[in-house]
Amino acid sequence: MQKTQFQKTLGYHIVLELHDCDATLLNDMQQIKTIMCEAACKAKAMIVTEHFHYFLPFGVSGVVIIQESHLTIHTWPEHGYAAIDVFTCNSKLALQAAVQYITQQFNAGNVTQHYLHRG
Amino acid sequence: MQKTQFQKTLGYHIVLELHDCDATLLNDMQQIKTIMCEAACKAKAMIVTEHFHYFLPFGVSGVVIIQESHLTIHTWPEHGYAAIDVFTCNSKLALQAAVQYITQQFNAGNVTQHYLHRG
Repeated sequence: MQKTQFQKTLGYHIVLELHDCDATLLNDMQQIKTIMCEAACKAKAMIVTEHFHYFLPFGVSGVVIIQESHLTIHTWPEHGYAAIDVFTCNSKLALQAAVQYITQQFNAGNVTQHYLHRG
Repeated sequence: MQKTQFQKTLGYHIVLELHDCDATLLNDMQQIKTIMCEAACKAKAMIVTEHFHYFLPFGVSGVVIIQESHLTIHTWPEHGYAAIDVFTCNSKLALQAAVQYITQQFNAGNVTQHYLHRG
């Protein structure tokens, strides 16, 4: 299932781990929503809907449903960490543009990404 | 990132690949919504919201946002395939009960699941 690079497949899935992020930002639901929706646009995806949820005492979960699948995020401000998934059925989307944008916006000091091919 | 079994971590993520499924069911958005929401209940998760989308000419995408993170599904009826992700920040959820239920409901002939620990 796991590949270092994408090959022809049904689903293209990037598992993105952002550590050492801006903790304040990781707790700001509105900002996170803006970033994730903008990331979908950077990928040239078409947004169908989005839903974001703030957790007490801290943390945000959210999903952006795109015509071409989804982006999700879950944040742990207390750990400076965000778990992000970008999944698409369309190999023509600019996934790396989305990943680069997200990484920059969260000012992540430590980033790992893994490519999964699905199907 | 990838482990054969869960260890203590922030996020618990199951990547589930269902092949050789019932193609008619994979194209039935209402049924898929029912199955995914019921799977969340089997896991003892609390549903926050859900969104499902039908694609022409075929295929369904959907997400169930739970207090403890999310479940997503994307189906390719023409390939008898569904890509499912179950993600939670709560180690006490009964994820395997959800996975077993989903697998049975889709009558999958070929199943793989991978455990990712996130964070």
